This record gives sequence, C-alpha cells and structure tokens, in this order.
Amino acid sequence: MIYLDNAATSYPKPDEVYEAMYVSMKEYGANPGRSGHKLALKAGRAIYEVRELIAKLFKIDNPMNIIFTSNATEALNIGIKGLLEPGDHAITTSMEHNSVLRPLKSMEEKGVELTIVQCDSEGNINLEDIEKNIKENTKLIVTTHASNVTGTIFPIKDISKIAKKNNIIYMVDAAQTAGVYDIDVEEMGIDLLAFPGHKGLLGPQGTGGLYIKEGLMIRQMKEGGTGSKSDLLTQPEMLPDKFESGTPNTPGIIGLGAGIKYILDKGIVNIRKHEVELTKYFMDELKKIDKVRIYGPMDIEKHAPVVSINIGNEDSSEVSYVLDKVFNIAVRPGLHCAPLAHKTIGTFEHGVIRFSIGPFTTTEDIEKAIDAVKKISREI
Amino acid sequence: MIYLDNAATSYPKPDEVYEAMYVSMKEYGANPGRSGHKLALKAGRAIYEVRELIAKLFKIDNPMNIIFTSNATEALNIGIKGLLEPGDHAITTSMEHNSVLRPLKSMEEKGVELTIVQCDSEGNINLEDIEKNIKENTKLIVTTHASNVTGTIFPIKDISKIAKKNNIIYMVDAAQTAGVYDIDVEEMGIDLLAFPGHKGLLGPQGTGGLYIKEGLMIRQMKEGGTGSKSDLLTQPEMLPDKFESGTPNTPGIIGLGAGIKYILDKGIVNIRKHEVELTKYFMDELKKIDKVRIYGPMDIEKHAPVVSINIGNEDSSEVSYVLDKVFNIAVRPGLHCAPLAHKTIGTFEHGVIRFSIGPFTTTEDIEKAIDAVKKISREI
Repeated sequence: MIYLDNAATSYPKPDEVYEAMYVSMKEYGANPGRSGHKLALKAGRAIYEVRELIAKLFKIDNPMNIIFTSNATEALNIGIKGLLEPGDHAITTSMEHNSVLRPLKSMEEKGVELTIVQCDSEGNINLEDIEKNIKENTKLIVTTHASNVTGTIFPIKDISKIAKKNNIIYMVDAAQTAGVYDIDVEEMGIDLLAFPGHKGLLGPQGTGGLYIKEGLMIRQMKEGGTGSKSDLLTQPEMLPDKFESGTPNTPGIIGLGAGIKYILDKGIVNIRKHEVELTKYFMDELKKIDKVRIYGPMDIEKHAPVVSINIGNEDSSEVSYVLDKVFNIAVRPGLHCAPLAHKTIGTFEHGVIRFSIGPFTTTEDIEKAIDAVKKISREI
Repeated sequence: MIYLDNAATSYPKPDEVYEAMYVSMKEYGANPGRSGHKLALKAGRAIYEVRELIAKLFKIDNPMNIIFTSNATEALNIGIKGLLEPGDHAITTSMEHNSVLRPLKSMEEKGVELTIVQCDSEGNINLEDIEKNIKENTKLIVTTHASNVTGTIFPIKDISKIAKKNNIIYMVDAAQTAGVYDIDVEEMGIDLLAFPGHKGLLGPQGTGGLYIKEGLMIRQMKEGGTGSKSDLLTQPEMLPDKFESGTPNTPGIIGLGAGIKYILDKGIVNIRKHEVELTKYFMDELKKIDKVRIYGPMDIEKHAPVVSINIGNEDSSEVSYVLDKVFNIAVRPGLHCAPLAHKTIGTFEHGVIRFSIGPFTTTEDIEKAIDAVKKISREI
C-alpha cells in the first residue's frame, strides 16, 4: 500500500513510537499523578517529559501551559467554548475544518456573533477582510495554519498582528503543520494553539493538545478527578489539571513524545525539506497531465504537503476507489470535513482527491502516484 | 513490584492487549471512518468490532448506542451535562468520585438543583433516602456501582426500580465494576452507563465509553469532523458520530477490544471469583492484625475487590510510602478523588491506604501484603 493520506493521520510512525508505547505499558503502566508509588511516579515523569518536548518544539516557556487532549478537535472545542460568551464576536475563515466551524456554529446558537471571512479560490485569506470585520465585541480570531484541503498556508504572523493591535485573542489550528512547519508561539503571537498528536507530530491516534497563553482565562469543558486538591468538590484552577480530568492516555502521550523526539533528532527543517520537495515534484508532474486540475496555490512556499486534484469531471470518490483497488494507493476523496473550503474552491459538488505526503513518503511512492493519475486520466 | 493499585488502573494487561495495539498501529494505522481505502476501512471495522464486544459484555442491543470516550470521567461529564438543564433536579450519593460530584457541582452553578444522599459509615445507601428526596423536577439519579474507596457495592436494580417508577433517568458509574461484575443494562434498568477502558476491562489508558439508552436525548459536548455529513456545519444527530468528533483513539480502542476478548474468553465469573476470593482472604487476615481498621462492608458479597485500611493513627501517605519503599508494594493513599466518601466513613483527615486487586494478583502478592501490614503495625 502506498500511503498518501498523511493529512488524515501519519502512517507509518517511527518505530520508536510503537516501541515506546509498548515498553511504557508493559513496564510502568500505572496511573500517573495518582498514588505515589514508583510506577505511578515514573508514568507521571514520562508525561511531564512529553510536555517539555512540546514546549521545546513550539517555544513555549512553561510546559504546564500545555494541556493534553484526545485530539485537535477537543483542543479546538476547549479553546472556542472555554473563551466565548454570549454577546462576543468571533472571526474565522471559509477554509476551516468542521472542528473549528461546528463548535463556532454551536456557540452562535448560544448568542455568539460569528463572521466567516471568505477566502479566494486558492484558499488565500485577504488580511483586509479580517480587519474590516473587527467590531468592538470581537474577542477571538481562529484560523488554520494550513488548509487540509488545498494546503494553503496562512500568514499567521500578519493575522496575529491584527489581533494584537485590536486586543483580540488569536487561536491557531495547527492540524496540518505541527511537526513539519516552524511554530514559535511567542514570535508568531499565538494565544491558543491546537494541535493533533497523530499527524505531523508522529504520535499515535488519541493524542493532541492545546497551548494556552499564560494568564488567559479559559473555562474547562469537563470536571473530575485530577489527583490534585482531592478534598474539593470544585475543579482546581491550576494548569494543566484544570483541563485534564480523569486518567490520561499515558501510552498515547508517551508515544507522542517518541514521535516528537524523532522530529527533534531528525530536524524539523529536514522533514519539511523532504516533504516540500516531494510536493513540488508531484505538483510539477501533475501539471503536465491532461485533464488534471490542481487546487490551492501553485507557489510551493504557500503550499503545505497536501495536494488536491480532480481528473476531468470524475467524482473524487470514484477516482479514489480506483486508486485504492487498482493501484493500491491510499488517498482521501470527498469533502474532508471542510464544506466551506470546498465551496470556496468550487468543489462542493464532487469533492477532490487529496494526496498528502508524510516524512516516510518516498520518491518512488510519488512516481507511482503520478503514473496512476496518468493512467486514469487516459482512460476517462 | 507487587501491584495492588488496580482500582486506579489495571496492571499488567493481558499480553494480547499490548500485541493488538502494536499490530494495529504497525499494520493498519489509518484513520477509521474517513477516507475509504483498505487501511482506513480495516481500522473502521476493528473499531466496530470493539463496539460489538462491549455490547455483548453489557447486553446492549445496538452497538451504535455505545460511544467511545477518553476515560470514564468524560463519559460521566457527557451524560450529566448533556442531560441536565437549569431547573432540573439531580440526586447522587456521598460515596461518589469527583468525576461525578464535580460535574454535578458545576451544573449546580448553572441552576441545577442537587441532592447528595448521605450513605452510612460503611458506604451503604439507604433506598428510602433516595425515594424521599425525589421531587417533581428530578430528572437524573447518578450512583456508582461500587465505591472506589470502600468497595461497597450499590443495589443498582433497586435504585433503578425507584428511578423507573418515578420516570427518572438512571446513570451508573461502573468505574470499579466493569469487566469484573455482571452488568446487564436491560435487566438492571440502566439508562446511561459510564465505564473506563483501562481498569477492569483491561484496555489501555485513554479509553472509556458511555452507553446511551435508545431514544435518550443527550447533548454533545464537542463538535467537529465526524467523517459523516461533512457537507453540514452542524453536528450530525446520529449515534455514535454525534459524540465522536475528531480522530478516535484507534490503537487504544483496539487494545480495549483485546482486553474485553480476554475477559469473555476467561469468563467474567472466573475473574470475579478469583478477585473475590483474594479479597476475602486478605480481609480475613487483616482482621487478625492489631491496630488495623478495615473500612466498608465486612460481607464479601457487598464488597468489590478494593480493601481500604488504616493502621493505628498513622497517616495513609506515610504507610503507603513505607509499603512502596520498603516492601515494594504499590497502593494508593489519600482521598482517592472522593472527598465526600472519606467524610462519610470518617477518614477525611488522614485518608486510607487502598489495596486493590486485579485479575493478575496472586495469592503470594496478598501474602506479602499481609506480611508487610503485620510488620508495619508492629513497628508503630
């Protein structure tokens, strides 16, 4: 199987990830932050080390400002729902995933005002469109770092400047960039950063996290046992406990740590270089194929390693089915949980065929994908 | 290490659990319910099979009425917060864990009325105390199946009868019983069943679930991509998608499935027999030791495999520290995230030393624990 569905979840993971999880479960599978015996302490320390690794990767001062979640969706829900109140106004874009749009829409029902800024047909945001929609009650701007449909990279620093100037909180959805593109929360002015553990960070599914800037007041979504202040019937306010009720996903978090260690050892710049080169090669070759339409920016500097295409007027599901059955290539067709993005680029009807590249994708994989697209385009 | 902290998380797990997770990640680590290629379909099927196993274990008709959560705490939050509205009245007990009490307390702040029924000093509930607190606006009764502090087993069927008679929804926290005690949601009249995956069910940490009775309207806590109805900006209403936004913890769920398969193969009755026999032996021997006070019911039929004690007036943390350092025995001291339970049994000041037995606990483990308690009691 040629796996080109890394935007859904990266596969394979580095062997170290599987090994770290296996070892942690087998050798110290106790409940971290509870009890206090050797195994529980070892598990607790291992989790703290992963917080430190994430802090290192995203240049976060205090690892305690990182909370673990079960995926990026949960992190986005916590940020959006924990911050906004009826009467507040939020701005987002038409390129967002449903993990941003659906929580915002649900807050709209509760009295939050929502503006969805329309992007252009390549998925680019016009900064002026953000600026002109700012109102007195604008509390939050949420944007993706890169679109999961077109790969369009957003100008985070520029958006953040607008947010800062207007005293607005800026939340970034790094689902498609964490682990591949540089993220420096200070330098980029990110107040809330939601990230999945199982995509570019190379951890297992079931992991993700949210960085919350020091001092930002966010309500928790869940209460429960935190192993701290157990005498109280109210949730402790201190981070990360406030947001981490119940037993954490210890093996998952430890696997995530192994994934991040792999990235730090390898160098994020090298991983990016590899993925960008393959993306460029893929796009350059696709351009030459008859009937193929590529979506998103043609400039590779603005294009994350997600390549969405259509072939003639074929339905994306049909083509993906053939890619899977005949060519043994795994891609993702359809709407990618981002209906407005597809409306924005004009593909709401048929969807697109999305190829997404990961650190273990090879030139040979891409050659085979090019060959398959050529053959399909000849036959229709 | 003699591990007697199974009420926090079971350890070790059956080897099949580690293996199943490893294999699933290595061989078909794709994103279930998305895409549609072979690997994604295989992951999706594997998750569905775990839903079926859970349905089999708890005698649930439709596996789609089971939703996966990251732990029992999340399941309890979804049930409590998804059901109650301002003006509703809820009844719970003084033996509950903070994963029940804290969400209820947070709903109290939003205008839900709350009655916490006081249990006796062994942790037993008096059914009349539930009945006499029912009001016209009582919508929910939540109780544990067995206390995580005293092991006291609650009369679920009797409470459920009271709930049914008064048209009240009954939610059960099976944190200490799922996988060890028989649970039949139909026969026991359970409307909402919250369970952890990583305790008696022998799955990994990061797993849990909620059974929602057919037709019961529960609001979701999170929205996001579900891989279904991707054209809509609103959360789909169908189960389990409504409650399962974002990429699921696939390896964790598959590990949970392996844990449940182990239980079904071994026979839950045999696992229970083993744990109950060890618990009885442990309690019988502890009774003979000077200065040891055992909490909870002395009748083993009413006592889950959780044995909490104190030795003289020693602080529970001190004794647990010695058990860990000197005797290499892992237990959990303190309040166990259940402050009202400790007030109920009179141990709020010093906590208790909790020994909890699992399917892999041996007679030798218990003998060593008895020996250690004897030595400590002689030395103080």
